[in-house]
Amino acid sequence: MANMNRRVLLKSRPQGEPTAANFEIVDQPIPEPAEGQYLSRTIWLSLDPYMRGRMAETKGYAANINLGDAMVGGTVGQVVKSRNPRFKEGDYVVEYAGWQSHAVSDGTMSMKLDPASAPLSAALSVLGMPGMTAWWGLMQIGKPKAGETVVVSAASGAVGSVVGQLAKAHGCRAVGIAGGKDKCDYVVKELGFDACVDYRAAGGNLFKELRAAAPKGIDIYFENVGGAVQAAVVPQLNDFARVPLCGLISSYNDMQMNPGPDWRLLLVKRATVTGFIVSDHFGQMEGFWKEVPALVKAGRIKYREDIVQGLDKAPEAFMGLLKGRNFGKLLVQVSDDPTRR
Amino acid sequence: MANMNRRVLLKSRPQGEPTAANFEIVDQPIPEPAEGQYLSRTIWLSLDPYMRGRMAETKGYAANINLGDAMVGGTVGQVVKSRNPRFKEGDYVVEYAGWQSHAVSDGTMSMKLDPASAPLSAALSVLGMPGMTAWWGLMQIGKPKAGETVVVSAASGAVGSVVGQLAKAHGCRAVGIAGGKDKCDYVVKELGFDACVDYRAAGGNLFKELRAAAPKGIDIYFENVGGAVQAAVVPQLNDFARVPLCGLISSYNDMQMNPGPDWRLLLVKRATVTGFIVSDHFGQMEGFWKEVPALVKAGRIKYREDIVQGLDKAPEAFMGLLKGRNFGKLLVQVSDDPTRR
Repeated sequence: MANMNRRVLLKSRPQGEPTAANFEIVDQPIPEPAEGQYLSRTIWLSLDPYMRGRMAETKGYAANINLGDAMVGGTVGQVVKSRNPRFKEGDYVVEYAGWQSHAVSDGTMSMKLDPASAPLSAALSVLGMPGMTAWWGLMQIGKPKAGETVVVSAASGAVGSVVGQLAKAHGCRAVGIAGGKDKCDYVVKELGFDACVDYRAAGGNLFKELRAAAPKGIDIYFENVGGAVQAAVVPQLNDFARVPLCGLISSYNDMQMNPGPDWRLLLVKRATVTGFIVSDHFGQMEGFWKEVPALVKAGRIKYREDIVQGLDKAPEAFMGLLKGRNFGKLLVQVSDDPTRR
Repeated sequence: MANMNRRVLLKSRPQGEPTAANFEIVDQPIPEPAEGQYLSRTIWLSLDPYMRGRMAETKGYAANINLGDAMVGGTVGQVVKSRNPRFKEGDYVVEYAGWQSHAVSDGTMSMKLDPASAPLSAALSVLGMPGMTAWWGLMQIGKPKAGETVVVSAASGAVGSVVGQLAKAHGCRAVGIAGGKDKCDYVVKELGFDACVDYRAAGGNLFKELRAAAPKGIDIYFENVGGAVQAAVVPQLNDFARVPLCGLISSYNDMQMNPGPDWRLLLVKRATVTGFIVSDHFGQMEGFWKEVPALVKAGRIKYREDIVQGLDKAPEAFMGLLKGRNFGKLLVQVSDDPTRR
């Protein structure tokens, strides 16, 4: 249905884990751009954990999705028709078109991409929101000093992998936590972390294995997951530890509140926990652009993509993401990427 | 026994609440100052919640007290014999002599006091450690902006009372939380807080009463107590709230870990929780000295003392402190204060 707009709508709100029944796939007419707008076809759709929050009724950090609206999400697209002088037919753009094959936009939140400088999809991973998230949390909140130990959970993911490699670039010991031997091997052998703890294999020994991997204690914990991992990490924080609190994927499906660590652990160590969301800081990314693209070009920050073909697969892929089934940045290829041919 | 050194020793470590059996009161010979030392008689002894941590075996933020050693604590004393040229007989000093009537010191951690500029005992409250704690936590961690709402627990205490009055001086709405009508009345009518919630009377309505007292949400929560108060406050934090984590008096007697708030609450609000202990920052108090003594002199920061007569009463007074029985800064008068005659 290339002459229709395929869209994935939020049909009902999940109670706990999302299921296929929460989504509805529809074909609707492709919209016409009004004066000042352009129409793009979506090439790449980014799937990210924060989307779970947008599906809920309870107040999260951004406006939630209304029932019947398309799921939201960052995308890379190509302009196919334009009534906006800033965007021409054929231009590649990173935008926020959501889970749909076509979208109109006035371009205020869109940025043109140069396909010669980096693969288009990188604008959704290492050179996009996940990379900025890693950089902001580690550098602006964590403030790493050479010789310190940085622990990051979901270490093989789009954010975690950049956190550990950035930590290495700044002279820190980088310790990952990930689920499964493959992910841990990748984190250590491919990405160059000093160690990685497999929380699934560790089970009740997680605290001990983490201590072995971070024998001098933990100066920065970049928190992506919460739950049992959080409980093992927090008692191992060093004096004046910093905890950039980026995500808590282990509890996104929980309907009830979960207990966090006893604040006595934070008090005794004079630790700082700082929740953040990268979109608050999109205007403060000069340091990111100065540092990260060069490290990527030099091969000092590597990244991995986990690509799913076709928008229809997005719901299933997203459900897997919340269970850690992806390996690398999860992307949906919605249509052809001419720069990859 | 004026010619003996009366001392309160740690006899055994408390299991839960301290009891009289954990302390031993002894009379020992008054020590002789060695070359470079002075001998002081203690006039005022400060009793503070942190002392509970020093009595425990588990690792706290400072070296714990060994069994058989005197309890530690800040004091104001008068030099009675000196072999140190910096200190002369009759000088008043603020020092860390602990729970005893006499002590020798080399003076490295002592500071001379001018009794003409402020009452001697103020060096243990508003112009001493509790005042510095309030200032550091509110100003350096909380960073209040005019129009924001500051909530402080243990609001009538030595630290909390200064926090709220400083918040008012910076144009904030100051909301206290305290136990009992007398304390709440004092906080509002004497100290000028905008509101005070009596957590004892509120019981299960604490959340609601707090919402009524802080209708625009909470920008800064100065945490002194933990427990049910913490649980009521954290869900009411505003975006970008700051939580100077100073103490958790409700749980100091607990042998087990207590659950803290779900970190999702911190993440969604992008809140920051920062544990601190003022002694890490004694060298960074220029701002305190610039601001607080002038506010005290101008009557814009008032303080209240709860004075217990005689060192023998210190254990009982300390046990009451942990239950919130004191009203104002708890001090033990160990011997005569000639400046108050």
